[in-house]
Formats: sequence, structure tokens, C-alpha cells
Amino acid sequence: MAEQAAPQNPAQNTTSTAGSDLLMIACSETDANIYYASHFLAPDAFIYFQAKGRSYLLMSDLEVDRARAQSKVDVVLSYSDYEARAKSEGIKAPGLADVVHTFMKEQAIQEWTVPANFPLQYGDALRQHGYTLNIKNDPFFPKRVLKTPEEVAAIRITQEAVEEVIGEAFERIRQAEIKEGLIYYEGQALSSESLRNFLHLRLMEKGYLGQHTIIACGRDACDPHNEGSGPLRANESIIFDIFPRSIESRYFADMSRTVVKGRPSDPLKRLYDTVLEGQELGIRNVRKGKNGLEIHSEILAYFEKQGYATGKVEGRMQGFFHGTGHGIGLDIHEPPRIGKVDHFLEEGEVVTVEPGLYYPEIGAVRIEDMVLVTAEGCRNLTTHPKTFVIP
Amino acid sequence: MAEQAAPQNPAQNTTSTAGSDLLMIACSETDANIYYASHFLAPDAFIYFQAKGRSYLLMSDLEVDRARAQSKVDVVLSYSDYEARAKSEGIKAPGLADVVHTFMKEQAIQEWTVPANFPLQYGDALRQHGYTLNIKNDPFFPKRVLKTPEEVAAIRITQEAVEEVIGEAFERIRQAEIKEGLIYYEGQALSSESLRNFLHLRLMEKGYLGQHTIIACGRDACDPHNEGSGPLRANESIIFDIFPRSIESRYFADMSRTVVKGRPSDPLKRLYDTVLEGQELGIRNVRKGKNGLEIHSEILAYFEKQGYATGKVEGRMQGFFHGTGHGIGLDIHEPPRIGKVDHFLEEGEVVTVEPGLYYPEIGAVRIEDMVLVTAEGCRNLTTHPKTFVIP
Repeated sequence: MAEQAAPQNPAQNTTSTAGSDLLMIACSETDANIYYASHFLAPDAFIYFQAKGRSYLLMSDLEVDRARAQSKVDVVLSYSDYEARAKSEGIKAPGLADVVHTFMKEQAIQEWTVPANFPLQYGDALRQHGYTLNIKNDPFFPKRVLKTPEEVAAIRITQEAVEEVIGEAFERIRQAEIKEGLIYYEGQALSSESLRNFLHLRLMEKGYLGQHTIIACGRDACDPHNEGSGPLRANESIIFDIFPRSIESRYFADMSRTVVKGRPSDPLKRLYDTVLEGQELGIRNVRKGKNGLEIHSEILAYFEKQGYATGKVEGRMQGFFHGTGHGIGLDIHEPPRIGKVDHFLEEGEVVTVEPGLYYPEIGAVRIEDMVLVTAEGCRNLTTHPKTFVIP
Repeated sequence: MAEQAAPQNPAQNTTSTAGSDLLMIACSETDANIYYASHFLAPDAFIYFQAKGRSYLLMSDLEVDRARAQSKVDVVLSYSDYEARAKSEGIKAPGLADVVHTFMKEQAIQEWTVPANFPLQYGDALRQHGYTLNIKNDPFFPKRVLKTPEEVAAIRITQEAVEEVIGEAFERIRQAEIKEGLIYYEGQALSSESLRNFLHLRLMEKGYLGQHTIIACGRDACDPHNEGSGPLRANESIIFDIFPRSIESRYFADMSRTVVKGRPSDPLKRLYDTVLEGQELGIRNVRKGKNGLEIHSEILAYFEKQGYATGKVEGRMQGFFHGTGHGIGLDIHEPPRIGKVDHFLEEGEVVTVEPGLYYPEIGAVRIEDMVLVTAEGCRNLTTHPKTFVIP
């Protein structure tokens, strides 16, 4: 799924000193850093410490036993034990920061590194207690960016499910008939909604959670995050952008394909060929040490050279106005970015390469693969063919 | 789904002054406040202002046109326009806080109210720019707690799907045969996983997203958030706790039922009757003006009187060690809480009432309905029968 070209990152406004004593307070269902560190899933926020090389969770009575059984941290502590200690030290109704403070005093550590999204409320309260909090930008855990073989396998397994179900969807389009410009499968006009439901059900049957899958046709597709709605039309480009997560491993995969049922116009054919050439150029450029900004700029320059300009026309963005790619793993969009920012690729990064071109008068095309950065180049984790025309 | 009895809330550590000029920077896919305010769903964080009574989004090139078409705010502004303005004012590489600052200067507002989970990184950067940020605890939007008739209807529609699919699951258990202590349906032993998959698929077919549905048996169920695994056993209590969201409206519903296939032991029967009596006591107590702390304490006292103590036994929590209930809406757990904290119920709140008792030697029971607080009492939004024994 496309991401903005220049992440809105205030790096210059934040501290860059980062020690090894870490604190997070977050919900692992929505915060991949705390999940990565704890391997514990819970519906409400909980507290994670890394102190003097050991990892800790501070858990409510409701979660403490399950955390002991399921999490991968060194020590699971009881929140209510520390709350009782805070009370015994004279605090009448200890708040979370008081309880966290009780643990921190015990560790005799004054300076903690927290993620950029650390809640301001707790930040203020802990600073009132006298602690120094150093904010560390993502990647909070640099290792999260460099995928282990197990993580690459998990992403690839999710991608296999993607390829299987998208193959089934394309087979429906292949078997379909064109009547009055619409696409009929087994007597019903295929729509963005009906195909999306089909894909999400097939994914769930296999143990994958698909949400917001984009199946967008014609002008809808010119807005890269428009999910699409209504009947799909023949002879127009249809963007499929599908990015489910494995319910078991929690790793995402991400792939886009653009197809036409019937016959594309000549300008649309040329648009497709240009995006495909741009995407292949991008993939050829991926290797350890290469600057993502250059990869992005080269594609943009290639598009411009072919006559496809990027910018506002009548108040709307046209051309190639998102990033070339993004890291993927426990988050659908995670570092690194391949876009309008410097990033020197490292071995073990898994990134998407997904340029697109969007012109309401012609159509929209986006093509996306996931690749693993290697020393010499990259390994494409996507094996699905790039077929434009489905007769 | 059960929540901790006393939310870990550091209210005493935060500012209580809250003006009407609001700022949020969050991802609406995971942050219900920014979704509530914007009605715009996006996979990455974006910026919301409420300034002098008008609401604004500041959106990247990738999302700006879609936000104009889909969001419900008064004005959608282009992030890159403000970024360009910041550059023209001499900032070489403006970060997000610089861009936000450009908008704030234009508004000539020095003091902003932000939610408790506002990212510390942006909080620090904006304070460096000279702004006063007042943190407002949840409910950030007090109106979010008081459901409109449309919101109650959305919750009730989700609940209808819950009742339909859970009815189908119970029908499978009813039709099943007991062989060597296990529960066989159409020749297969029913397991937590197989029934969970069945429920999640049926929900998705209807347009609902079920995740982490609890189907836990015997000792698994004594850990209230254990999802359950392995074959379900006859004559033991099985907790079903199901809390999907509508993909269309994004509103949740939440229900728990406890059943036994076959014959429960006498102690388990008595445990069930006690929880049911406690839950009915709780529901009878719900009305405008009543303190949730009292509702919780009365149930706890009733359980104690019946001989069911709460506390640690051999290092594990037993008894009734979670809250009685929680608000529900765009989040599965949202204010208010009915637990170990004061909260005087207001008309229009939708809360769960879900006491439970957990003893590894006997079994686990939790029963949960959702109710709408009214002036005289409450309206139960849950109509599913409470059947304990499935013969």
C-alpha cells in the first residue's frame, strides 16, 4: 500500500541520545514495538522496561498470569504489588507514573529512552518525578528493520496466501463476460465490494486478516488510498492492492497489481508499460548501500522523461505523488522509507517497490512487489506474474 | 471482554485545564478519538485541529483529496502547502512540528488541548516553539461517552450479528455428541480454534471483524483473557466472549456466555448461579447517577457472602479480579469504567456488565450483557438467552 513520499518526521526537534534502558507504555494490539519486545498481545496498554540488560513487564492482576505464560520477557511483575509498595511509601492513590517510579527507584536508573509516540501524559508525570526521558525515533529497535530468516519466512508465507487468493479473483475476472461495459461473473456484475468480500473471506479461511483491500477502478483508482466502490468496468484499469497480516505470526505482506478486463486504450497501455518499466528500474536499483532517495528520484525522472509530470492540476494531485516503497513486517508501513528522504539500504531490510501513475483522463496504474535487500541486489519475495490485460 | 478493575490512570499527575482549541496527531485506524472527530480512516498518522470552533485536517499529498471527499471536518488543508510556507519563512527542512507551528501562528492561538496519548516527541517540539499544551484525559470528547440514538443502533446492529453467530455455534454444540470427554460435531472434535474460526468467518460474511474471540475451557478459562486452545471438553465450563466490530460503522458489541456440554458438577452449577445472580444484581443497579464503584463493590460483596473470595492463591489470582464493566463504542474498552473507581453513571452511556468467578479447582464463569443507561434504570441491548447447560 502506497505511503507518502516524505514522512512528516520531526527528527531535528528531538533528542538523539539513546541509552539502553528503555521504557514503553502502549497497547501491543496496535503498537508493534511493544509487541516486538514482549511477544505478548493484550487489548489494553501495559508497561515494558528494559533495564540493565533485562526485560520486564509490569502487568495488571487481570493479565499477569497470562503474561507469565505467554510473553518472552525475562521477568513479569505484578502492577498491584508495586502499587501497594507506592502506597506503603505514603502515596495515597498512586497513579501509573507513581507505580512506574517505584520500579525505577528500585533499579536506580535516572535516564530512560522512550519511543517518539510515548504518551505525553506519562512523559510529563515521569519528568515531574525527576527522570530524564530521551526520545528515540523509529526504528526504536534497529533490529526490527533487519529481518531474520524466520521473519522473512513469515512475510513470505503471508505473501503466498496473497498470491493464492488474488489468483482466484483474477480467475473470476477471466471467466467473466463483458456486458454493456460491466463485468459479469456467474450472472452477477462484479463490484469492488463483492470482490473485496470474496478476498477477505478467502484470506480469513486461511488464517489471514485482510482489511481495506483496494479494488479501485477508473477515477476511484486515481486516489491511491481509495478502496473503490461500485461495479467494476471493462476496458478501464483496476488497481488491486492487498496487504493482509497473518493472524498467527502478525507479519504483513503487500502486493499491488493493475489489470484491465477487455481492451485498454492506447494511452492506458503506454501508462502501464511506463509504470512497469519504472518499477523494474526501481527493483534493479535495490541493493545494500544504495540511497532510497536516489531510487525514488530515478523513477520520478524516468516518468518525467516519458512525459508523465507530477503535480497539481486543477487543485488535484496527478502523476507519481507517493513514495516508491516502505518497510514491512509487524507494521504495514514501517522504516525504512524509499521516497524523498535519504536512506542507505541495509542487507536484511524488506521493502516494497510500488511506483504508480495517476491521471483521471487516462487511468491509474500501480505495480508493487516486496523485496529483500541483499549485498548484491535483492531477492523478490513476490512471485505473482504481472499480467495487465485479462481477455 | 473483561477489563482491569482499576484503570492505571495518572489523572492526579496531569493538568486539568482544557480549552476548546484541540490538537491531535494520530492514526485513525487505531485511535478512536481522531476517527470520531474526522470520520476519516487512514493507515498513517495525520493532524487534526479544532480552532475557534472550526475543525481542520492537515493532510499529505497522498491523502488530501480523499480527505476532502470523505472526512467530516470543516476544512482540509494541504500539508505540503504549509511545509512550503515554513520553508519560505526560512526553515530549511521543516519537521512536522514546524509545519504545525505555521498553522498555529496563522490561528494566533498559544494554548492547545491535547489527548493523554499525544506523542511526547511532538509535545516537546511544540513546547519548544512556545506553545502551552494542556493534557486532557479520556473522555477527550465527552460526547463520545453519551451515545446518540444512531450510535446505540450501530452497537445494537453489531450485537444482532453476535447473537446470530453465537446461536449457530451453540447449535453445533447442541447437535454434538460426547465421546471420551470430548465434543464431536459431524465426526470432528470441536476445539477452541475450530469454533473460533467458524465464528470469525460467519462474522466476516456478515460484515463484522471478530478478533481474539475467547472460547476457553476448564483451566484456560480461569485466565480471563486466555483465548483458549485445544479440544473442548464435556462437563467443564466453556467461556465464550465475543466482541467484533462492524466494518462499516466501526462500532463494537461485546457479549459473554458460559456453557457446559453435558453435566456440570454441583460446585460448578453453584458457581454459575452465583455469577448469574451477581450479574443480575449489577444490571438492576445500573441507572443514571449511580456510582459504578458501588455496583462493583456490591457484586464483590455478594460473591464474598456466598463464599467466593478474591485474591492470590499460590501466586495466582482467583475469584473476581477484573472490573464489572466498561464503556463500549468505537473502542472495545472506553470510558466509563465500572470497577474500583468512582464514576456516576450518565444517561446515554453504553456499558457492559460482566462479573466472573475463576477457580481452577471448580471452573470459570463469566456472563456479560451490554446495557444503555437510562434515567430510571437501563435498557439491555443484549437479548441472547443465558443458557448454562447444553444437553
